[in-house]
Amino acid sequence: MFCGIIAGEVPASRVYEDDHVVAFMDVRPLTAGHLLVVPRAHAASLEDLGVDPGMRVFAAAHQLARALRNSAVPCEGVNFFLADGVAAGQEVFHVHLHVIPRTPGDGFRLKAKPRSPGRDELDATAERVREGMDSLPG
Amino acid sequence: MFCGIIAGEVPASRVYEDDHVVAFMDVRPLTAGHLLVVPRAHAASLEDLGVDPGMRVFAAAHQLARALRNSAVPCEGVNFFLADGVAAGQEVFHVHLHVIPRTPGDGFRLKAKPRSPGRDELDATAERVREGMDSLPG
Repeated sequence: MFCGIIAGEVPASRVYEDDHVVAFMDVRPLTAGHLLVVPRAHAASLEDLGVDPGMRVFAAAHQLARALRNSAVPCEGVNFFLADGVAAGQEVFHVHLHVIPRTPGDGFRLKAKPRSPGRDELDATAERVREGMDSLPG
Repeated sequence: MFCGIIAGEVPASRVYEDDHVVAFMDVRPLTAGHLLVVPRAHAASLEDLGVDPGMRVFAAAHQLARALRNSAVPCEGVNFFLADGVAAGQEVFHVHLHVIPRTPGDGFRLKAKPRSPGRDELDATAERVREGMDSLPG
């Protein structure tokens, strides 16, 4: 679907585009002004996304966050959100970074139960992440 | 606080660092493996953060997401989350990108009430965002 938007074949309310990314309004906004930034080159997941296209998606989101705060859209804060994989809530399999303007009482929040593990557990988890990093292919 | 971690003066379970960013385990993880990526140069907000440091934060998070999926940490998906401003839930005023490994039933989710505005409303909002972008200083 996002490839159709990028190609101009599917209607969208565009806010920004360059050679690498396109940004447009989410049709199911969590708050007014909620927009999506996507890479032009199709990538279903972070695993498929190049490092450079990823950085360009973030750079566009960064400037759009500044633009929202500088605009007539109600915006006292901004969240970025990205879901990679079904387990993370990804529904459209073309990488997209959500940019969500926030105002007090807008009804959007994270629901979670944070823990407070000890340093030993945190260090052991960190070691596992470093091992995963060291053994990445490519 | 994050400046103390970056300087090595405050304990942290580090997973990655380079000349531009440091990544370490969140001490209040929403799921096991939840980590934070921060720019070395202090920036309280996205407004204070340079474009290049922002891209480097994202690039590190991108590789750490791949590392989590490639590690012994339970991870079937990944969320990125960033809060800019009190209204967005920011609590530590040094820009940080959350990288959160996900598994089914881990208890983490977004709580929100999405709307379905018509195209006219989406187009009008998009116009406001573009005006905000066009009038950004710098």
